Amino acid sequence: MNQWDDTIVALSTPAGVGALGVVRLSGPEAIAIAGKLFSKPLGELPGRSLVYGHLIKEEQILDDVLLSLFRGPKSYTKEDTVEISCHGSSYILQEVIQLLQQAGARLALPGEFTQRAYLNGSMDLAQAEAVADLIASTSAGAHQLAMNQMRGGVSDELKKLRTQLLDFTSLIELELDFGEEDVEFADRSQLSALISEMQQKLGSLIDSFTLGNAIKRGVPTVILGKPNAGKSTLLNALLRDDRAIVSDIPGTTRDVVEDRVIIEGIEFRLQDTAGVRETEDVIEKEGVSRSLKLAQKAALLIYLFDLQTESPDQAQQYIDLLGLPEQTHVLLVGNKIDLISASFVPQKENLLFISAKEGASLQALQQQMVQSVRRFAHSNGNQAIISNARHLAALEKAKGSLDEVQQGMEYGVSGDLLAIDIRTVLHHIGEITGEISTDEVLGNIFSKFCIGK
Amino acid sequence: MNQWDDTIVALSTPAGVGALGVVRLSGPEAIAIAGKLFSKPLGELPGRSLVYGHLIKEEQILDDVLLSLFRGPKSYTKEDTVEISCHGSSYILQEVIQLLQQAGARLALPGEFTQRAYLNGSMDLAQAEAVADLIASTSAGAHQLAMNQMRGGVSDELKKLRTQLLDFTSLIELELDFGEEDVEFADRSQLSALISEMQQKLGSLIDSFTLGNAIKRGVPTVILGKPNAGKSTLLNALLRDDRAIVSDIPGTTRDVVEDRVIIEGIEFRLQDTAGVRETEDVIEKEGVSRSLKLAQKAALLIYLFDLQTESPDQAQQYIDLLGLPEQTHVLLVGNKIDLISASFVPQKENLLFISAKEGASLQALQQQMVQSVRRFAHSNGNQAIISNARHLAALEKAKGSLDEVQQGMEYGVSGDLLAIDIRTVLHHIGEITGEISTDEVLGNIFSKFCIGK
Repeated sequence: MNQWDDTIVALSTPAGVGALGVVRLSGPEAIAIAGKLFSKPLGELPGRSLVYGHLIKEEQILDDVLLSLFRGPKSYTKEDTVEISCHGSSYILQEVIQLLQQAGARLALPGEFTQRAYLNGSMDLAQAEAVADLIASTSAGAHQLAMNQMRGGVSDELKKLRTQLLDFTSLIELELDFGEEDVEFADRSQLSALISEMQQKLGSLIDSFTLGNAIKRGVPTVILGKPNAGKSTLLNALLRDDRAIVSDIPGTTRDVVEDRVIIEGIEFRLQDTAGVRETEDVIEKEGVSRSLKLAQKAALLIYLFDLQTESPDQAQQYIDLLGLPEQTHVLLVGNKIDLISASFVPQKENLLFISAKEGASLQALQQQMVQSVRRFAHSNGNQAIISNARHLAALEKAKGSLDEVQQGMEYGVSGDLLAIDIRTVLHHIGEITGEISTDEVLGNIFSKFCIGK
Repeated sequence: MNQWDDTIVALSTPAGVGALGVVRLSGPEAIAIAGKLFSKPLGELPGRSLVYGHLIKEEQILDDVLLSLFRGPKSYTKEDTVEISCHGSSYILQEVIQLLQQAGARLALPGEFTQRAYLNGSMDLAQAEAVADLIASTSAGAHQLAMNQMRGGVSDELKKLRTQLLDFTSLIELELDFGEEDVEFADRSQLSALISEMQQKLGSLIDSFTLGNAIKRGVPTVILGKPNAGKSTLLNALLRDDRAIVSDIPGTTRDVVEDRVIIEGIEFRLQDTAGVRETEDVIEKEGVSRSLKLAQKAALLIYLFDLQTESPDQAQQYIDLLGLPEQTHVLLVGNKIDLISASFVPQKENLLFISAKEGASLQALQQQMVQSVRRFAHSNGNQAIISNARHLAALEKAKGSLDEVQQGMEYGVSGDLLAIDIRTVLHHIGEITGEISTDEVLGNIFSKFCIGK
């Protein structure tokens, strides 16, 4: 904790005019520095005090404020912390921060409060990263993901695995101390079982990234179909907006039209594409090519077809020919149910009939969209979900080293070589929770935070 | 206080993503409503408590928050008040406000917290209005003005006058009770003296509006001069920016170019104008006409002339011919001192020589600009300054009625007629501090506030 001998200050509320703005101070001198400006003595106050008073500048009242005082380690950063709730005038807030700097505080870097909280042991690194995700969350799904990570969901899982593996490493390294004696303290079959279990768990954490990332950044959802199937009408209906230009002329949409919609707390990034067909029109051709490329990257693909001209089987055949990645979830959606006389209900899963124009069965479609994400979550078990690209990279490296440990055991390599690979696994897992970290990694993580947190 | 039986809620920090956002509740049920969401019981807590805990939605943690609890009348509104400091995610803040509404709170109207503070007697109306000015203040001058008004500077002055006049009215009305007896409890010469004093004080308050308004909204400062005197160069130099297009060609500036600069805490609204000359060019002609119109409205007029071609006397003659309003402060500024060989220092007040291009004596000019505002303030004595158009209108009406009282006394009108006019004076003064107010006036005032204050 002694690496932080200075006191930092920042505006913690968004910039702009509001009823109030909060300036936060943290560090060994936080209370003394705030005390220099405040109209009442702060020195004797206990932690968690809430005081009303004035900030004074050159014997004039600068503002009436509410001051919250925390004594470390009972604070977010585990340091002495003062929060000053001022009137939300840009002039006042600027002045207050400047006066606090003159009184000895230093402007905080982005995320520096949270970085101190992490380095002082309030939270691990994955939890600290979740704080930024929490602040950035705009949907219930993204919020839940961040909150779960902040509460240690991902970390707990990883720490459990890490501890088990660490125990084995100690035993193997103990064997090394006995040198030539050829003893085996670490039961190889137990180790083998643990490694299989870890491979499976790391694998499903890695797999969860697609879902986690989709929830955090919005589920990439592509609406694909032949010209005039009603794709733009569907997009507009889902957005309840006139986002895309709609006409009876096949080939109206050329550029990819994208917008976001939140359904039951899950954000979908809807992408309306050019209708797929053979065409001589150069611009449309480029549009079609982009549609097909996007389809390959979709997490959810809505294949929309005109019930008057295309059968569900034809639609399925078309999809099969696309050769989509295994994890792509496809919904076959027959449109224009209002224009065909027969009213039958499809029996197949992932198949439904709607009228984008009349709004018929739109709710059912939304349900299916949400289900497709939930199903993914369910197939993943009740396990933690990762949503952070840094975690994904570390997990993939850990899994790679784990594979080498397994191979090594199969080939019967010596304990010292096994130990090296196991240490690499431990290192990469430790990177996620921050047991292992470098200044560069920390700099990278916290620079993405907003200032004041 | 019994007109407020509901509890209001609003976001008190600016919209946008930040480290934290504060949601404020005020009203009889504030503590009970917040308690429905909070993870710890709030009922028994004393006023000014600061508690850390969770907000719960459907048995899930929505956020980790700090909650400040105030028990009326020891709060801003004099009602029970709760402030919840959440993570600054738009999703979380929206959810919290929605949950608090479901728990029984109502969305606050703009300024409703301050309106309750006023109606519950925390402050008078002029002070409440100053809260909005304080939040909007962007310069030290505007801040000081608002802070002074908020602390009762204007109100105290008015209340003193009002009380004195009220005493006289009571005496005059007492005379009326004695009907035909022709007694005079109210000493007419004393009343006459008081009225003179009030006329003088109201007059100088009315006069102070020009200054107050200039400080609050920025001092309207017009740069006037012949073509090619260097007006745009001066504007850019004062702004330290390339705001206006500069060239050697006379008549470069046609539209009025405006920007703001803060010098020693005073905001100047600088207006660079087309050079004044006889011209056949239709657009330039229109520009010249606008320059001269603006000059009439300036609080501060900087007349810039080229020392190579125009003498200070000629400049003064030109200004005299403009017939500016008496209160316009004029600075005669000779430019291009770098291009003339003689280096002499002007002896006249309000006259100085600079080089806009080289930056010579620019600081002296800035000093003079600040001085011209301060001098205005000084001529006004140490008295309160008003900056609010509503107050100006009420003061002018009060002064008008006061003039009628004086005339009436000169003509020796009867006490009952005097009393009516005096009551009118009292009414208009009371409008400012809010002893007299209507729902319409209040609606007008508080609708200009931001929500959450």
